[in-house]
Amino acid sequence: MKALVYHGPGSKAWEEVPDAAVQEPTDVVVRVDTTTICGTDLHILKGDVPAVTDGRILGHEAVGTVTEVGSAVTGFREGDRVLVPAITRCGRCEYCQRGMPSHCQTVGGIGWIFGHLVDGTQAESVRVPYADTSIYAVPNDVTDEQAIFLADSLPTGYEVGVLAGQVRPGDTVAVVGAGAVGLAAILTTGLWGASRVIAVDTNKFRLGKAVEFGATDTVEAGPDVVDAVKALTDGLGVDVSIEAVGYPETLRTAAALVRPGGHIANIGVHGVPVELPLEQLWIHNVTLTMGLVDTVSIPTLLKMVASGKIPAEKMGTHTFGLDEIDRAYEVFADAAANEALKVVIKRS
Amino acid sequence: MKALVYHGPGSKAWEEVPDAAVQEPTDVVVRVDTTTICGTDLHILKGDVPAVTDGRILGHEAVGTVTEVGSAVTGFREGDRVLVPAITRCGRCEYCQRGMPSHCQTVGGIGWIFGHLVDGTQAESVRVPYADTSIYAVPNDVTDEQAIFLADSLPTGYEVGVLAGQVRPGDTVAVVGAGAVGLAAILTTGLWGASRVIAVDTNKFRLGKAVEFGATDTVEAGPDVVDAVKALTDGLGVDVSIEAVGYPETLRTAAALVRPGGHIANIGVHGVPVELPLEQLWIHNVTLTMGLVDTVSIPTLLKMVASGKIPAEKMGTHTFGLDEIDRAYEVFADAAANEALKVVIKRS
Repeated sequence: MKALVYHGPGSKAWEEVPDAAVQEPTDVVVRVDTTTICGTDLHILKGDVPAVTDGRILGHEAVGTVTEVGSAVTGFREGDRVLVPAITRCGRCEYCQRGMPSHCQTVGGIGWIFGHLVDGTQAESVRVPYADTSIYAVPNDVTDEQAIFLADSLPTGYEVGVLAGQVRPGDTVAVVGAGAVGLAAILTTGLWGASRVIAVDTNKFRLGKAVEFGATDTVEAGPDVVDAVKALTDGLGVDVSIEAVGYPETLRTAAALVRPGGHIANIGVHGVPVELPLEQLWIHNVTLTMGLVDTVSIPTLLKMVASGKIPAEKMGTHTFGLDEIDRAYEVFADAAANEALKVVIKRS
Repeated sequence: MKALVYHGPGSKAWEEVPDAAVQEPTDVVVRVDTTTICGTDLHILKGDVPAVTDGRILGHEAVGTVTEVGSAVTGFREGDRVLVPAITRCGRCEYCQRGMPSHCQTVGGIGWIFGHLVDGTQAESVRVPYADTSIYAVPNDVTDEQAIFLADSLPTGYEVGVLAGQVRPGDTVAVVGAGAVGLAAILTTGLWGASRVIAVDTNKFRLGKAVEFGATDTVEAGPDVVDAVKALTDGLGVDVSIEAVGYPETLRTAAALVRPGGHIANIGVHGVPVELPLEQLWIHNVTLTMGLVDTVSIPTLLKMVASGKIPAEKMGTHTFGLDEIDRAYEVFADAAANEALKVVIKRS
């Protein structure tokens, strides 16, 4: 089969590899019908994730068809249409039992293993460990082009942004960074009855998309951003400030927007330490959360997509064939300039 | 009457001032029978709190006797023995209604006003605004020497450490800094069924006290502290890490001790920004909380003290008369060297 193989920083190739096959009785093999690219894949290509070594097949998101089933798998059979999420879970360790498979101790101490610790989904087929506890049947009324974004970006915005930030009815919410994951947070914040959702970004295309995704207000990032956002509240700032970029400045901006007693929900993947103004924040009774997605909200999100409450398909702006994956990476790597959110990559 | 008056950085005097008197119908006047000194008073004396200006009477903790009652006060009368807590609340603003009077918008945007925005409790008498919604009757079976620590230090350790850190039965807890507030956290963590409470400090006297207050283990702060604490857990770190010092290094230590999915509860008052290793923490699904005490746990703590479950009197290691308050400050300012936790200051 063919797959996108990592060959060290800056180097990858769509090349012939051995076919994916069941190795453990709890595995299935899934033919990849639809996949996508995540910001994390770009980090890997820069060499930021040293655990990913030469020869690893990239990708951690897929919708596909089960083609082989391990002897211990009871919940899926050949031909099933399934969603393969970013997180793999044993279902049994302390973290899985607490609903926090992001730190499944069995699969590697971290639940994100595809395209990281084992071969991933940017391939014609993928071996899926712990299938019974990790993958989801996709309902007929959810399309591949919707389901693919439930593998990572939508649950990330929802769980790490909206749920961790504890958005409640009436809350004012700011989302700093209206890329794919920030937009996922905007798309799902409304579910919790936010009274105002303020998108902050430097990019006009993204701010336009933010309104389409449910933002009530947009603010261009810049030196006046704090005043502008406070003017949209009662002057004290927002109840929940969601950071969806991953830079020190953007986290500090998110922190500056929050009112006393509020929540700062960091979604961004950070590459360097962040200096925070604790000398101001300590007295403000704020909560700062951060983390890797658990993907445990997928059943909820599938229902919301099926019922039309979450138009997940809006996340995909560009479509490519699997054999055009290099081109898909080029477009996604410069997403803002290309007016791209997420790319949809389909079996050729 | 006499009171301890702030006269700018480094300067204070126990001097004659006008008698405290009712100014608003919602005020009472309380004769101060017992007071104490807080680490915040030392910060003020260093000039770290510019809102405190020359002429301000210091102090925000008292147990005393009501001597004058405003016309709108219905819950207290002359002769009542009361606890005057660090936080004053209107009971009506959005923050008070949410149980977060630390940010009461009516009394000054911040609930801590005694010895800060209005005259304080290190005096023979004190005017207490919003008495009905701010002060507490002290039960007969709670002594002054117990109740005084419920004005600030015990609720701070409990609310900002144990409750904000969401300690749950079975949790492992580390407390970085075993001064008065850290010990207050240790004293109240056991109430929530922690399986292990690990005190971390550089000072042997304080580590000894920590055991007396309920710590199951002690670790001397130093380069091996993270390994030592992890060795006392399953190797992943503690569920809840409470910071009770207020320096960048101690907050980073507290952050390094926590396991994936854990809580870092910052109690420390910070004077400078803190650089945090977000590049490591973001993927650990940790929560960082911080804040000023609300003192809303006082009714609970009064019951626990009355029933003997919280030996609050253990916080007081030294006793002085009000007219010895300068000496009390000297002892408290070098608490670790003087083997002092909190000082009890009594009406002379």
